[in-house]
Amino acid sequence: MRTLKLTLAYDGTNYVGWQRQINGVSIQQLIEEALQPLVGVHVPLPTVVGAGRTDAGVHALAQIASVQVDFAVPVAAVGRALNVRLPVDIRVLDVADAAPRFHAQFDAKGKCYRYRMATARVQSPFGRWFAWHAPEPRDVAAMREGAARLLGRHDFLSFQASGSASVDSVRTIERIDVVQEDDAIVIEVEGEGFLRHMVRIIVGTLSEVGSGRRRPDGMTAVLEARNRRAAGLTAPACGLTLVRVRY
Amino acid sequence: MRTLKLTLAYDGTNYVGWQRQINGVSIQQLIEEALQPLVGVHVPLPTVVGAGRTDAGVHALAQIASVQVDFAVPVAAVGRALNVRLPVDIRVLDVADAAPRFHAQFDAKGKCYRYRMATARVQSPFGRWFAWHAPEPRDVAAMREGAARLLGRHDFLSFQASGSASVDSVRTIERIDVVQEDDAIVIEVEGEGFLRHMVRIIVGTLSEVGSGRRRPDGMTAVLEARNRRAAGLTAPACGLTLVRVRY
Repeated sequence: MRTLKLTLAYDGTNYVGWQRQINGVSIQQLIEEALQPLVGVHVPLPTVVGAGRTDAGVHALAQIASVQVDFAVPVAAVGRALNVRLPVDIRVLDVADAAPRFHAQFDAKGKCYRYRMATARVQSPFGRWFAWHAPEPRDVAAMREGAARLLGRHDFLSFQASGSASVDSVRTIERIDVVQEDDAIVIEVEGEGFLRHMVRIIVGTLSEVGSGRRRPDGMTAVLEARNRRAAGLTAPACGLTLVRVRY
Repeated sequence: MRTLKLTLAYDGTNYVGWQRQINGVSIQQLIEEALQPLVGVHVPLPTVVGAGRTDAGVHALAQIASVQVDFAVPVAAVGRALNVRLPVDIRVLDVADAAPRFHAQFDAKGKCYRYRMATARVQSPFGRWFAWHAPEPRDVAAMREGAARLLGRHDFLSFQASGSASVDSVRTIERIDVVQEDDAIVIEVEGEGFLRHMVRIIVGTLSEVGSGRRRPDGMTAVLEARNRRAAGLTAPACGLTLVRVRY
């Protein structure tokens, strides 16, 4: 057996997310199916494991995936073969041979996500699938102050999608930047791992800090409440991008 | 009568271009139709004049259009009414009252176009509709040297789509920049006016300079030939964007 490490970029707009679902086409499924000609037609498809299970509509600049295969095809040819079969909104950027026991999900040490809020009054037709259109005036300094209260190790139960099954909701946020660009507010979060919808609920809650509906120091009370209802809305998936995975 | 000046952004991917055509949907047509509720249902649609007749698949960051209307609706409300009716890949960025005789096409003093060649080996799924994927190595310094030979006033007949009807093919290029970005070569051209396909043929020819198939000083011979066949390929429409119009 041989373990491959894939680096993938995708526009998640048209998919039900990374993970296989019965109700639509997933990125995982398309990559597994694209491996079919390499593994052979009468062989069951290998499981491709992703570092992060991005939701429907969420994008990736460099998602990492691992897969165990038997074939001896050189890595460059594997990449080309996959890209020929994959739709243009999913691209294999790199294929490398990894240590035999490499596991993209369990071995990940950290991830960086970026969220983009488009602030122009009229949303640009470009990048409209890659940002949440949020043109109301927002106090970015207040958002930054609120964000700082999430830094470090906390129970993020309030920032987890209700109905999620995570037993342990303690996570560490190592970095959270709120940056004002020309026509956007960009929020970048780095941590060892994230709960379901965690980044989107953080962005939704910070956006309410930005519009003055919450005070920056209210973020601490949201953490302490350990209740999804204490936090703000879940920001739309389209604004979120998995930027990189750390091993 | 009242003359409105519209500033428009559009993703041209899904359209036959600016100008009304019988073979598909144009941007001009959609904007004229979006005016219908404002002008009244039994009134003929006014003609919306664009500064530049962008081709099928070409984009605009700030196309300018003029239209003469009778209604007294405030400009901000006109913009909102148009954006409600227009598809999201066409946006009205601004509406202003202009001098009664303002004509977006005839009054334009200059235009700036930007062309994007994506150079990453594997094309990014993001912005794939807004760049020509041209991953072969290119000598950007040579392209810059070739571009410089086009500066100034010349007969650009060699850089005009064959079969075009322009009687006078003399044009002035005021500025032409070739810039290497992370994953792209960006060519920006500014001039008082351009022939049909002129920017795309310039880019296609410069791309051949970049790949070593032509010498930079060969651009002068292309100009002097006054023959479309002397120039290179017409670069794909998707990489081209009308950036601004000067009055």
